[in-house]
Amino acid sequence: MRILIVGGVAAGMSAATRAKRHNPQAEVVVFERGDYISYGACGLPYVIGGEVESFGDLIARTPERIRSEGIRVRLRHEVSGVDASDQSVTVQEAGGRARREPYDRLLLATGVSPVRPDWATPGVAGVHVLRDIPDGQALEASVKSARRAIIVGGGYIGLELAEALRARGLSVVLVERGLDVAGRILDPEYQRRVRQELERHGVDVRCGVEVQALTASHGRVTGVQTSAGLLRGDVVMVAVGVRPNVALARSAGVKLGHTGAIRVNTKQETSTEHIYAAGDNSESVQRVTRRKVHVPLGLTANRMGRVAGVNMAGGAAHFPGIVGSGIFKTFGLGVARTGLSQHEADALKLDAVSVDVESTDHAGYYADAAPIWVRLTAERGTGRLLGAQILGHPGSVKRIDVIAALLHSRGKVHDLAEVDLAYAPPFSSVWDVLLVAAGQASRAARLPRTDTTAP
Amino acid sequence: MRILIVGGVAAGMSAATRAKRHNPQAEVVVFERGDYISYGACGLPYVIGGEVESFGDLIARTPERIRSEGIRVRLRHEVSGVDASDQSVTVQEAGGRARREPYDRLLLATGVSPVRPDWATPGVAGVHVLRDIPDGQALEASVKSARRAIIVGGGYIGLELAEALRARGLSVVLVERGLDVAGRILDPEYQRRVRQELERHGVDVRCGVEVQALTASHGRVTGVQTSAGLLRGDVVMVAVGVRPNVALARSAGVKLGHTGAIRVNTKQETSTEHIYAAGDNSESVQRVTRRKVHVPLGLTANRMGRVAGVNMAGGAAHFPGIVGSGIFKTFGLGVARTGLSQHEADALKLDAVSVDVESTDHAGYYADAAPIWVRLTAERGTGRLLGAQILGHPGSVKRIDVIAALLHSRGKVHDLAEVDLAYAPPFSSVWDVLLVAAGQASRAARLPRTDTTAP
Repeated sequence: MRILIVGGVAAGMSAATRAKRHNPQAEVVVFERGDYISYGACGLPYVIGGEVESFGDLIARTPERIRSEGIRVRLRHEVSGVDASDQSVTVQEAGGRARREPYDRLLLATGVSPVRPDWATPGVAGVHVLRDIPDGQALEASVKSARRAIIVGGGYIGLELAEALRARGLSVVLVERGLDVAGRILDPEYQRRVRQELERHGVDVRCGVEVQALTASHGRVTGVQTSAGLLRGDVVMVAVGVRPNVALARSAGVKLGHTGAIRVNTKQETSTEHIYAAGDNSESVQRVTRRKVHVPLGLTANRMGRVAGVNMAGGAAHFPGIVGSGIFKTFGLGVARTGLSQHEADALKLDAVSVDVESTDHAGYYADAAPIWVRLTAERGTGRLLGAQILGHPGSVKRIDVIAALLHSRGKVHDLAEVDLAYAPPFSSVWDVLLVAAGQASRAARLPRTDTTAP
Repeated sequence: MRILIVGGVAAGMSAATRAKRHNPQAEVVVFERGDYISYGACGLPYVIGGEVESFGDLIARTPERIRSEGIRVRLRHEVSGVDASDQSVTVQEAGGRARREPYDRLLLATGVSPVRPDWATPGVAGVHVLRDIPDGQALEASVKSARRAIIVGGGYIGLELAEALRARGLSVVLVERGLDVAGRILDPEYQRRVRQELERHGVDVRCGVEVQALTASHGRVTGVQTSAGLLRGDVVMVAVGVRPNVALARSAGVKLGHTGAIRVNTKQETSTEHIYAAGDNSESVQRVTRRKVHVPLGLTANRMGRVAGVNMAGGAAHFPGIVGSGIFKTFGLGVARTGLSQHEADALKLDAVSVDVESTDHAGYYADAAPIWVRLTAERGTGRLLGAQILGHPGSVKRIDVIAALLHSRGKVHDLAEVDLAYAPPFSSVWDVLLVAAGQASRAARLPRTDTTAP
């Protein structure tokens, strides 16, 4: 049994480890085109910001350690083609010759690549994306001598980097094409609070602004030309999204889904026999809507990888899908979401109602009580939980996990409203903000559609 | 409709408010024997410790505010008897004459009283319990001039006060009769960590030690005589538990449960027609075991009060019971539990298995990662969640709510193991400690009973 894995970060390494553990006799080979495997890409912004000491700290397991588990690791090996009919791939070591490698099972764990818009002319120094360790090292080198940063894109990476670059003493302009930051993460009311947090910490946020071109001098970036004029900067961070790496899948005749990512079943099998896909390049099922989605996140990638690994090695595992949890912090604000926003529920024509509650993260009379905002979204009539958004002190927003767990089992707001969540003054109000929100949502969900006012 | 309520703290005031809201025509009268109503008793230790500025901060609503809602509030009125046959109570204002007051519905929200062991001779200055605001004021007065505190009892109050009194600069000895502190809250392995936290902060913890007598000089306490010798101290805090105030219930012929607290149904009705009970004096149903328990805690009291209020006013509400969540902090350690401990499950002869996981509260490579310990207890064979215990940085242990919510709906460990809990490096490891524990518990729960080793 020969298992080939293309890509050695989250999904790929999880798959390799699980496959070897499930079937120690199997030959498991990982091809990674880069120099690094098994690292936590989610930690990259924090190395820039200084909360993580070095890029090396992000490496979970070294190649030596992985090899000691009997897994063959081939760094700087790029897989350029798949021949599904004779079960082989074409692989080329950096500076070497292409060769063919046969497989019994093949995993495509090729991840995503940052989107590089047309205006992000290659070859201009000081223009960055942030996806892997070399990207991080390049950005770090630029930041050392930079004074003015321009971040293009107000999603997770852009928002995390805004804090990191301010912490490094740079002035920061954040340019977002949409109406506000965190546009695909939160509903508009909550987007605004995130923007205000950025502005409170000196970030110059420009929304509704399109970048049209870079300006450069002697091959170094000097700024960006936008729909609202010229912005000057000596480092430009391009964080406008990612797209799945599917070229290899296409070459193998593997079908893509409507999201553009690889279509897989719950065993992580693709449409082509003996070829699996897992991680950021793959679709998953959103359990709340039962639709296929493309939500590339670290935990999901690890999980899909484990499932693929077990199945490739002859076992039987299933990936149950996601409820769509996400969390980040920017400056003093923690932001978490799970399930659907009201906006997303509306787009799916669900009969959804949302309530908003502002409270304190612990008893108001106890030292350092900070505000917390919760939006809970439920299905009208049934009271089924559809999603939540939470903003507050970073220490308080992981409450989102309560909602995630209930979403997973299709729980209802009135069930949540009845739980004895743990209470003591340093930890919450007597009525934890989630209980207040659940009580209000429970009432709101029973209202007829015409009466849309949340209490 | 005349509704009388005996007791004006958590359950009593919640009931009054809800009753009036449900039926504005009803006459709602609250008799409170003390000077204070509607305050957060759970905050008392933190006024001593300084995290809450003053006792006044604990008052949620003033009598004036409550009266403005149309509720009659009678402070310093003690209800000394109930005549259920003619639906009246005997009530006496401090310094006044006893009179009879008729009722249509009566609520007993009489709370609990601290247990005062035989050795706690009345009339010795410097000996305290902590249940209400006057208790707190008396303790505060003693602490001002004290240097050496003796805390008797290692439960919630004792552990919270250990921190508070150390913060006030006192030396602290904590005497616990049982084998370790937090004995009724946690399993032994976790009790030990709590004790170690106390010791790390200079608390002299003496377990397995019985207090036999006070020593006093000129009417002021000078120490306690124990089974392990004499301990000197100028303030003695008695925190050995509480018992429900049921004298009035008894006088009305209301039946008590096997726990010694008042037996109620889910409407908060007692065995006597038109008499309700709610709050710390009442039993509730533990949803995990479906047994009656007596767990006097603030959120439960508020909830029961609301239910009683609605029902007394002619509505229909039900109290769904508790899963048994509790949380506290002592020094730098947060402690949370819900459901059953392994010890409790064993005592109930449930076929339970526990797993222990030590991890970090957020990504290990991110600044200030702190250890977190999770014990997850599940039913063997079915994998049904039975309970959890979590210890760690205070900011990290409210994760317990995820388990509480799942316990409420009789969730299983393998469901929890599959949820996409929110992940980013400042908030958790990729595999949140709860997911790791759930995965291990899921495997352990399926083992035959002979193989008892948790992974």
